[in-house]
Amino acid sequence: AIVAELARLDGGGALAGLSVLVSAGPTYEDIDPVRFIGNRSSGRMGFAIAEAAAAQGAAVTLVAGPVHLPTPPGVAERIDVRSAREMREAVHAAAAHCDIFVSAAAVGDYRPAEVSTHKLKKSGDAGLALALVQNPDILAEIAALPRRPFLVGFAAETRDVDAYARGKLAAKGVDMIAANRVGDGAGFESERNALHLYWPGGDVALAEAPKRELADALLARVAERYRRTRTEHA
Amino acid sequence: AIVAELARLDGGGALAGLSVLVSAGPTYEDIDPVRFIGNRSSGRMGFAIAEAAAAQGAAVTLVAGPVHLPTPPGVAERIDVRSAREMREAVHAAAAHCDIFVSAAAVGDYRPAEVSTHKLKKSGDAGLALALVQNPDILAEIAALPRRPFLVGFAAETRDVDAYARGKLAAKGVDMIAANRVGDGAGFESERNALHLYWPGGDVALAEAPKRELADALLARVAERYRRTRTEHA
Repeated sequence: AIVAELARLDGGGALAGLSVLVSAGPTYEDIDPVRFIGNRSSGRMGFAIAEAAAAQGAAVTLVAGPVHLPTPPGVAERIDVRSAREMREAVHAAAAHCDIFVSAAAVGDYRPAEVSTHKLKKSGDAGLALALVQNPDILAEIAALPRRPFLVGFAAETRDVDAYARGKLAAKGVDMIAANRVGDGAGFESERNALHLYWPGGDVALAEAPKRELADALLARVAERYRRTRTEHA
Repeated sequence: AIVAELARLDGGGALAGLSVLVSAGPTYEDIDPVRFIGNRSSGRMGFAIAEAAAAQGAAVTLVAGPVHLPTPPGVAERIDVRSAREMREAVHAAAAHCDIFVSAAAVGDYRPAEVSTHKLKKSGDAGLALALVQNPDILAEIAALPRRPFLVGFAAETRDVDAYARGKLAAKGVDMIAANRVGDGAGFESERNALHLYWPGGDVALAEAPKRELADALLARVAERYRRTRTEHA
């Protein structure tokens, strides 16, 4: 609490003096030079978190997948990427020297096993089987680093949100999971959202609100948990 | 030539008095509530054609896939769709009462054989095979209608543009193919483009230009070919 109070005095804001990395948006995995596998993440939640973190005094690095969004005010650095492997590289480079990593990007779990150099042509009336391989699990990789930042993962689920989120918290070894239900117009491609936060030993529901407001509420909890874990470990 | 001159006098513009349908943008084919197969079409070429057609006096209907573009000035009607099957429905409804159909959309050739109601979960470290089936060929369907509009198809190719375009002209039974090379930054996701137009018995290269200028040059050729085929058939 004393550290937090000192931080607030030092330039104001619950995250003053801290370096925060935020990943946002989808990843696109190329099938050929024209086609790709994508997902519906608009990047708005991640961009709202980056904006809110900067407003709370953090030095913010934003790694963004393919989105149509301007860089939020106050964000110190933005790195645009397309594929999960590009995002992995950018996140690893930035995570090495940040205090908190909020992984809000919807990283594609799979990519085509092979990327065709030329546009695939239809052949006859037949279908085809597209072979997919798993992408690296960026959050799990960062969690396994010897000196790792405070980690916030996201879980976007269409059902059983609670069970998946608690499972992800344990399996990935992260400090917090922000879970939301998607589908039927909720979550993605919307200006509003609701989140349920889980951490080892606790959870809280953040009611539906504009994404920027929700980002403030999320970061207040992150700052609190961050100070607590750092005090416990010190 | 007399018809074209009369049309120009009647309200000005090479397409005055004509109803023009333009399709634009990509289609997205859902894999599950979160993931989809898309393509890199930005919709800019199609939107430029819709704007140019309206400026030339046409009554324009624009059927647009998922894009981030405002409706161009003068466009009478815009219908937003997502999948190839939604685009097919919108195009069939509008094509029934239009004089010219410019099919600039990059309609996905394939879609997942099944759409999962819930988000697919990773299982172990294994890859997976995504089964795809062919989408309807909207342009070929419109070409087969007993009373069909003047048809302009697009061919976006990464190589052998000339051969594919001439093949498409013959195979689909359309009146004109506008072909361009894509990949390496050309064509898609760019403000500029170059086109090569093919019609039965002739072709012309339109040099690289901003998409709006290129749309004017394309429509000048379309208007000329439209008047000629209508005179020949009359």
